Amino acid sequence: MTTVWNQARRAARMNPSIIREILKVTEKPGILSMAGGLPSADTFPVEALKSACDRVLSQAPREALQYAASEGYAPLREWVAQRVAALGMQVSPDQVLVTSGSQQGLDLVGKILCDSGAPVAVETPTYLGALQAFTPYEPLFASLASDAEGPRPEAIAALPHDAPGTRFSYLLPNYQNPTGRVMGAQRRAELVEASRRAGVPIVEDNPYGDLWFDEPPPAALSSLWPQGSLYLGSFSKVLTPGFRLGYLIAPPELYPKLLQAKQAADLHTPGFNQRVVYEVIRDGFLDQHIPSIRARYKANRDAMAEALRQHLPAGCEWQSPQGGMFFWIRLPAGLDAMALLPRAVDAGIAYVPGAAFYAQQPDPRTLRLSFVTLTPDLIREGVEKLGVLLHQALAGEAEPTP
Amino acid sequence: MTTVWNQARRAARMNPSIIREILKVTEKPGILSMAGGLPSADTFPVEALKSACDRVLSQAPREALQYAASEGYAPLREWVAQRVAALGMQVSPDQVLVTSGSQQGLDLVGKILCDSGAPVAVETPTYLGALQAFTPYEPLFASLASDAEGPRPEAIAALPHDAPGTRFSYLLPNYQNPTGRVMGAQRRAELVEASRRAGVPIVEDNPYGDLWFDEPPPAALSSLWPQGSLYLGSFSKVLTPGFRLGYLIAPPELYPKLLQAKQAADLHTPGFNQRVVYEVIRDGFLDQHIPSIRARYKANRDAMAEALRQHLPAGCEWQSPQGGMFFWIRLPAGLDAMALLPRAVDAGIAYVPGAAFYAQQPDPRTLRLSFVTLTPDLIREGVEKLGVLLHQALAGEAEPTP
Repeated sequence: MTTVWNQARRAARMNPSIIREILKVTEKPGILSMAGGLPSADTFPVEALKSACDRVLSQAPREALQYAASEGYAPLREWVAQRVAALGMQVSPDQVLVTSGSQQGLDLVGKILCDSGAPVAVETPTYLGALQAFTPYEPLFASLASDAEGPRPEAIAALPHDAPGTRFSYLLPNYQNPTGRVMGAQRRAELVEASRRAGVPIVEDNPYGDLWFDEPPPAALSSLWPQGSLYLGSFSKVLTPGFRLGYLIAPPELYPKLLQAKQAADLHTPGFNQRVVYEVIRDGFLDQHIPSIRARYKANRDAMAEALRQHLPAGCEWQSPQGGMFFWIRLPAGLDAMALLPRAVDAGIAYVPGAAFYAQQPDPRTLRLSFVTLTPDLIREGVEKLGVLLHQALAGEAEPTP
Repeated sequence: MTTVWNQARRAARMNPSIIREILKVTEKPGILSMAGGLPSADTFPVEALKSACDRVLSQAPREALQYAASEGYAPLREWVAQRVAALGMQVSPDQVLVTSGSQQGLDLVGKILCDSGAPVAVETPTYLGALQAFTPYEPLFASLASDAEGPRPEAIAALPHDAPGTRFSYLLPNYQNPTGRVMGAQRRAELVEASRRAGVPIVEDNPYGDLWFDEPPPAALSSLWPQGSLYLGSFSKVLTPGFRLGYLIAPPELYPKLLQAKQAADLHTPGFNQRVVYEVIRDGFLDQHIPSIRARYKANRDAMAEALRQHLPAGCEWQSPQGGMFFWIRLPAGLDAMALLPRAVDAGIAYVPGAAFYAQQPDPRTLRLSFVTLTPDLIREGVEKLGVLLHQALAGEAEPTP
């Protein structure tokens, strides 16, 4: 077929999200999906949102429905600046840029910081959506050697510093997607020190930090190096993803360019959504609401941990996460999580193969399980089915088909 | 000051929106602003939105507040596909991509079609927000010679077609921002024919098409060349800008890449917003609502046209727009709209200097006046003040300061 359209060079690098493609297959009725990172719909504060919508449209309809400032709704920016003080961050509301979900924050960061061929460091593995957001800006991904606490500080020290320079390290310190791991206080200090020495700034993404189970995580990386850090936050995991509301906190020198990128991208985040969320949270609502999410997700985590111990064959490896939404499983040698997925779907379950989360050299034995979408009973049922499948697969490995 | 941040090459090209900067100055109390293209807040259907918010949160809260499909809410996509049939477009809902305002549509188009140094053709003058959306992707703007009906067909024929090829022409056929002009049926046919011959596809932006005063505009450019056209639409001018809801209609060959760009940019447009707007419009609401907007804006247009005739000095040139939101004024030789703006603000009025809307060689004598934000009485007062200012400026021109 002939075409009149010439696509951009960057378009050739862009690919469909494997997660979103998997979700389409697996969200059919009857599939027990542990694939998507969907917050439990039982946690959505429907009545509070309903009443807030009504208040906003009664009290300030002309403002809420009109074009609005690209920076975001001023009271919400003030709320965010106060809120992050609990993470050790001292910031002015002028540093807060409201975004259309923190995914948009990643896009804006890529837009103003990534050049074709300039390195960007990411964890091994890392959040797939960040790889997708940065990829159109054609960075050269450097996959940082990582362990159970995240990237190794010496991996930061080894990053290329000749021109064009490593533009930033993208780090998720709290209950990382996909591994569920958390960086301890010492690891944070070492990473920031290595980053300072290497002259490589940090983009810190923290969608899961509020979802701790027994104790809150250590202070934010951004609190240790304010001028060298950009911070991304989100209301998706503690309120609702369906309002698409997140924020960037930027050093003053970067803020104007991020704001221009925001204007160009969508003028502003819906003023209505910002005002409704502010109405819900302004009087301390999250202080009551988040503990109920934590309790629910902790019970789910416990159910999945117990079911994994019961049902998974020897040779599977995992750690029980201290917060967040995910278990990260490594299968015994010889098994390939991507190759097994169709059989898993046939068996009525779904997960995300871990290979999707690597910028380089995927580990085909890994997979991600979400424990927040299903109830504990369904988690047990799903993990049992996964166990049966893995036992069968291992038996098949041992006895090759004739 | 030393910095650890290296910005992208494209960031150096990005600039603050002059309009948004002007709006900040001029939206102080007491200023009669004819600057911003803000729809009249009196047209926002507050009660219909309030009741729709309530219905959505009562009937489908778990779906409306959860992550959602990147393509958009299926019933809304079907509605859009049916709606554009009135513009002569035969499209499938599968071709509709819901965007976070049509500004985001422009960003996605730039992302998948623009390469550094590849030409993109724009009208002379053109919508500033489109220049801002495309600029980060570093196109080479080609400013099409234009007249009272838009670009001249021979300007299309003269576009560069050697590699990397002119990627597209960005055209606003209906009541264009900033000039208010509309393309007649013959001009549309000639432009499409010239574009076909030149092998240059069309990105058609139509935020104002519903705002006609006496007769609807001719069929969409996209109806004349479906496989060579991308179409952008918006709910901002007929319902509310504060929900940030627009859409792209793309040829099937381009849709997957636009969808990937959308996923990377913000995952999806808020599902809640899409469902609320669909609830409002699903049963023909716009067929009653839009005529009331037209009547209001037509009366405002008449008030401004009369006031301009009364108060503007000889030598000013303008045409009375047949729809949309803007008058485009050309001042007498020797006057500079940007240089006069501070005096205008001192006199209590504001406009947008036309220079902002040119990709190349601005005409400093031009300015844009919106007639939709103020009431007819305030329009008359504002235009009278503008007339006084221009008379004074011309007198000053005649008698240079000693």
